[in-house]
Amino acid sequence: MTYADLDQLAINSIRVLAVDATSQANSGHPGAPMGMAPISHVLFNKFMKFNPKNPKWINRDRFVLSNGHGCMLQYALLHLFGYDVTLDDLKNFRQLGSKTPGHPEAHDTPGVEVTTGPLGQGFANAVGMAMAEAHNAAHFNKPGFELFNNYTYVFFGDGCAMEGIASEAASTAGHLQLGKLIGIYDDNKISIDGDTACAFTEDVAKRYEAYGWHVVSVEQGDTDLEAMEKAIAACKEVKDKPSMIKLTTTIGYGSKLQGTGGVHGNPLKADDAAEVKKKFGFDPEKKFAVPQEVYEAYGKTAAAGAAAEEEWKQLFEKYKQEYPELGAELERRLKGLLPEGWEKKLPTYKSTDPAVASRKLSEIVLEALYPVLPELIGGSADLTASNLTRAKKAVDFQPESTGLGNYGGRYIRYGVREHAMGAIMNGLAAYGDIITFGGTFLNFVSYAAGAVRLSAISQVPVIWVATHDSIGLGEDGPTHQPIETLAHFRALPNTMVWRPADGNEVSACYYVALTSKHTPSIIALSRQNLPQLENSTIENGIKGGYVLQEAENANITIVSTGSEVGIAVDAAKTLKEKHNVVARVVSMPCWEVFDVQPKEYQLSVLPDGIPILSVEALSTLGWEKYAHESFGLNRFGASGPYKQVYEKFEFTPEGIAKRAVATINFWKEVTPIRSPLNRAFQHII
Amino acid sequence: MTYADLDQLAINSIRVLAVDATSQANSGHPGAPMGMAPISHVLFNKFMKFNPKNPKWINRDRFVLSNGHGCMLQYALLHLFGYDVTLDDLKNFRQLGSKTPGHPEAHDTPGVEVTTGPLGQGFANAVGMAMAEAHNAAHFNKPGFELFNNYTYVFFGDGCAMEGIASEAASTAGHLQLGKLIGIYDDNKISIDGDTACAFTEDVAKRYEAYGWHVVSVEQGDTDLEAMEKAIAACKEVKDKPSMIKLTTTIGYGSKLQGTGGVHGNPLKADDAAEVKKKFGFDPEKKFAVPQEVYEAYGKTAAAGAAAEEEWKQLFEKYKQEYPELGAELERRLKGLLPEGWEKKLPTYKSTDPAVASRKLSEIVLEALYPVLPELIGGSADLTASNLTRAKKAVDFQPESTGLGNYGGRYIRYGVREHAMGAIMNGLAAYGDIITFGGTFLNFVSYAAGAVRLSAISQVPVIWVATHDSIGLGEDGPTHQPIETLAHFRALPNTMVWRPADGNEVSACYYVALTSKHTPSIIALSRQNLPQLENSTIENGIKGGYVLQEAENANITIVSTGSEVGIAVDAAKTLKEKHNVVARVVSMPCWEVFDVQPKEYQLSVLPDGIPILSVEALSTLGWEKYAHESFGLNRFGASGPYKQVYEKFEFTPEGIAKRAVATINFWKEVTPIRSPLNRAFQHII
Repeated sequence: MTYADLDQLAINSIRVLAVDATSQANSGHPGAPMGMAPISHVLFNKFMKFNPKNPKWINRDRFVLSNGHGCMLQYALLHLFGYDVTLDDLKNFRQLGSKTPGHPEAHDTPGVEVTTGPLGQGFANAVGMAMAEAHNAAHFNKPGFELFNNYTYVFFGDGCAMEGIASEAASTAGHLQLGKLIGIYDDNKISIDGDTACAFTEDVAKRYEAYGWHVVSVEQGDTDLEAMEKAIAACKEVKDKPSMIKLTTTIGYGSKLQGTGGVHGNPLKADDAAEVKKKFGFDPEKKFAVPQEVYEAYGKTAAAGAAAEEEWKQLFEKYKQEYPELGAELERRLKGLLPEGWEKKLPTYKSTDPAVASRKLSEIVLEALYPVLPELIGGSADLTASNLTRAKKAVDFQPESTGLGNYGGRYIRYGVREHAMGAIMNGLAAYGDIITFGGTFLNFVSYAAGAVRLSAISQVPVIWVATHDSIGLGEDGPTHQPIETLAHFRALPNTMVWRPADGNEVSACYYVALTSKHTPSIIALSRQNLPQLENSTIENGIKGGYVLQEAENANITIVSTGSEVGIAVDAAKTLKEKHNVVARVVSMPCWEVFDVQPKEYQLSVLPDGIPILSVEALSTLGWEKYAHESFGLNRFGASGPYKQVYEKFEFTPEGIAKRAVATINFWKEVTPIRSPLNRAFQHII
Repeated sequence: MTYADLDQLAINSIRVLAVDATSQANSGHPGAPMGMAPISHVLFNKFMKFNPKNPKWINRDRFVLSNGHGCMLQYALLHLFGYDVTLDDLKNFRQLGSKTPGHPEAHDTPGVEVTTGPLGQGFANAVGMAMAEAHNAAHFNKPGFELFNNYTYVFFGDGCAMEGIASEAASTAGHLQLGKLIGIYDDNKISIDGDTACAFTEDVAKRYEAYGWHVVSVEQGDTDLEAMEKAIAACKEVKDKPSMIKLTTTIGYGSKLQGTGGVHGNPLKADDAAEVKKKFGFDPEKKFAVPQEVYEAYGKTAAAGAAAEEEWKQLFEKYKQEYPELGAELERRLKGLLPEGWEKKLPTYKSTDPAVASRKLSEIVLEALYPVLPELIGGSADLTASNLTRAKKAVDFQPESTGLGNYGGRYIRYGVREHAMGAIMNGLAAYGDIITFGGTFLNFVSYAAGAVRLSAISQVPVIWVATHDSIGLGEDGPTHQPIETLAHFRALPNTMVWRPADGNEVSACYYVALTSKHTPSIIALSRQNLPQLENSTIENGIKGGYVLQEAENANITIVSTGSEVGIAVDAAKTLKEKHNVVARVVSMPCWEVFDVQPKEYQLSVLPDGIPILSVEALSTLGWEKYAHESFGLNRFGASGPYKQVYEKFEFTPEGIAKRAVATINFWKEVTPIRSPLNRAFQHII
């Protein structure tokens, strides 16, 4: 517990690397790395357990830089400890195609656990990772076999502390008594607008105590390495509460502008950078110069981590002998494989089966999969009985002391905290052996837009069970009826937006969502009952779009999703009977999945030659991609019994038929009528 | 301060009305109204100052039901006090076209201040309304002329208390020391998932104290009217802190299921409803039966409110004589008029003027308008120096004790709290005499999606200054580069999404945004410099789309927005020089405004006969509405210097020209080529 010059040298090496990289890029944030170098040094060398040669070791301690703009701190650490981040990578900080982008991206950089930068997200991710550890420990650990015991450390700054998502996550973590979660709050009193006195004068420590956290303070966060070590050690001792260390630091420590907003988001001026180097005993003429002894010291920590993993592997080998079933399960989960035959549990339906709300069909899937997919863990943002997300035999994920469940439980009570739920799911999924879902109303997935975006960027396959997906929710009215939501998430890259029409399609979308390795899913589900459709099958559904009702010499193709598909089928009957018009009907539960089918298949579904009309009781935005004309809802809905609301907006067989006839007439004069799938050039993807 | 049978009768009348209305609708939430009837009775009769005959009186006390699902409480109160909400309206609760929708909607129901239901929003609205009062008081009040002194009361439940937006807003309100804001927390320990013990065990009172609030508790919130009155009176005495009353109530008080989730979101069973009525001394056979003496008692309160307004009007008359300038300003603002000639201050540019980033052009507008529009009040979510939202002479809106400004100040330091900022803006705008804007990166408007949606539904014309609007922000990378954001908000009804291309267009969008009475605006602005374009004018810009560069015998129309318009102009040159292709160029800064131009004008901009190519460095979703082919970015961006990022994705004159040629070739075989503006049928709007 005594610190020597070498420690200081290492700390200053980190600081100087941050100065050099931001100067070289002429862009970036030197302040936070310079301020948080000391705590990083202590944390990584004295406490953290990790193997830079295998950044995916499941029982590693997790580190999340929620104040992701300070990423040069993390990149410097990764480099010094021997992760696959070279000095050249640091020199390419914030350059095109580098491993060192402007904010940490999990799929770009080995050792970065989660993608951060959008403030508050990393903090909530860390809560999810700590929940994952607690669950794994409860599920797998046996006497003498502590397979899971890692800590999750998260750095966060004033910006994160101000964001509502972090408040939601902190309240959740306190409730869940996550003893292995340790947050380090960089209390540097500077945000972009300057001194936090201008906007953020609350008592953060007291607030975290109110959430049920253990809170300690370290006043001399720039220099007092012993106090930092003591604080972390004390936090590790508190087993039934998450801990927060309020660490008072000086942003840009060492710079002439230290302690001001001037060092937050701008590289140091050349003379200032030179002065910093001199002050820290570095050659001001040299850039990216790391003393060899620092590499050596950090190499020792890395070696200890590698040894720890080796030990863990041996333990796991013994565990597999002692507990072959659980051992095999963990091995399977770590490989990202689902149990053989799991998909046979997916329910299928005949068209003679009764009409059922798709939220209920989703419940049937979750119920069926509960016993076969132990890695499937999820919950709801306080809408369990509406989202229908809880299997009957599920145990709540709760601290035992609540008497409401245990950490082995797989059902999460998120409270009314959609944004945190989204980010916690990202953390649960990032942990490595968990598949996770979360329920809320489709309309309130928007509250979590920031987290959904990060699922997509960081390629984390979480699943949103998004019920009450249209004006079909009825009386709750426009404040709860989504209009823009599907367009929003369809525009978000790497996101599957599903709107299944019946039972087989619900099974199909779960099949794709659960086998997806890199893409999140949003499954939009109805409150109201939907008929089981003829020709719908899981095999059809997993193509994202298919011909539900073929017809020879058709005059029009009607393409629809979810609750409107059944109405479109009825509209086809009306068209035949009343208008002598032949309509094909296409169900397209997921654009993004349809988009990756072979072009030939796509054109067999939405062929040239006849016009295409889309029908969906939501914004029409984007449907022109598949249809010549679009029938939808480009205004807010209305409060009333849902059938009346549907009638008001003409989502009826007659309303669709009328527009189909108009479409046919309107497109008569155009030749050739080409499917909108034919395009002049490819999008950049 | 003594309460009699009549008080109890009134309270029970509210309860019974909630039971009857939800039963009649067979839908809705009786629990919260039954639990919060007593506090409502005390608050509205003993404290609140309002005139049901003029719900818009500017100095009325504001009431916000943030737990908006309990709206039958509010509807019952509005009815009893004589607002334009009849007993028939209550009978039509949650029916199509009624004044009593499933959640309170400000533009539907007289006396509803803001649209609530999405949890946490109303709480943050109330913070905005209290800020508006504080500002108006500082700006207008003079010795002997307390024109503004109203209180803002907000009811909120566990759901609101869990939402991050409310945490952000509460922290803001504490910092701002809003003494006239009083929150009443319905601590009924029930949310939809049941007992809050399952997810929400923090110490809410302590948390609010940490935010700097004055907190008192009332244990017997069902019965102890005296304690409620005392608590509110005590809160009113605390002038330098917002106050929170933790009011312990029993949800569904009186029902067999009281205190359980069973009364939260479902009407009472018939026998239970009958029992409730008997218990409260009502005839179980009668529905919607309000004792006459309750009407009379509430009528007295209403009459006192009307008298208070009368008194205020007389005071204002005297004020106008004493302070003619301020008096005239307030009168003008209350009429919703802007000062004559204000628009002459909007800057204009010639094409020879230097290239300037549109965020900077926005700053120039805000600077120019600062002295002429005293009602223009805004801020930034901790990105002031990036959003460029602060006029040089602006004073911060701060409590004097901070030494950083005063309540007369018009610049708001929101901290890193985008969601609260959005909802606070809704509250500021709802107050009645303020126009407000808020700055953040375009990408982080998504954090506030819930609040933006409510601006749109409730028709509140707030302005988002959304800078760093594309991959053009460069090094910060994909986590900060919007892709889906414009598509998202273009799909949101009643929202103007602007992406101006140069100085004149920036002035144009501010012109439309500031004169808008019912529609919010999101103004997407570049980080990078943009050239001033030939033929751009304010007059053109305010049409939402216009021909920037006309050409005879053109082969193609290129339609573009913002930073890509200048590149499109260069592409037209490249096309002429290298491909012998003639291109028209259209700038379309705002779809929604273009959409309401006469069809003839629209077709003159995007005419039949030649193909149309859209160019925008964001998701192409929705552009098919205006263009035959779309060049955009349907993937995440990249971290790097912005020019390199633009080149990588081919947003260059050559990249556009290549696609224009492909578009022309591809559309050659189709006749006729019709503008996509021609449609088979009209959307429902």
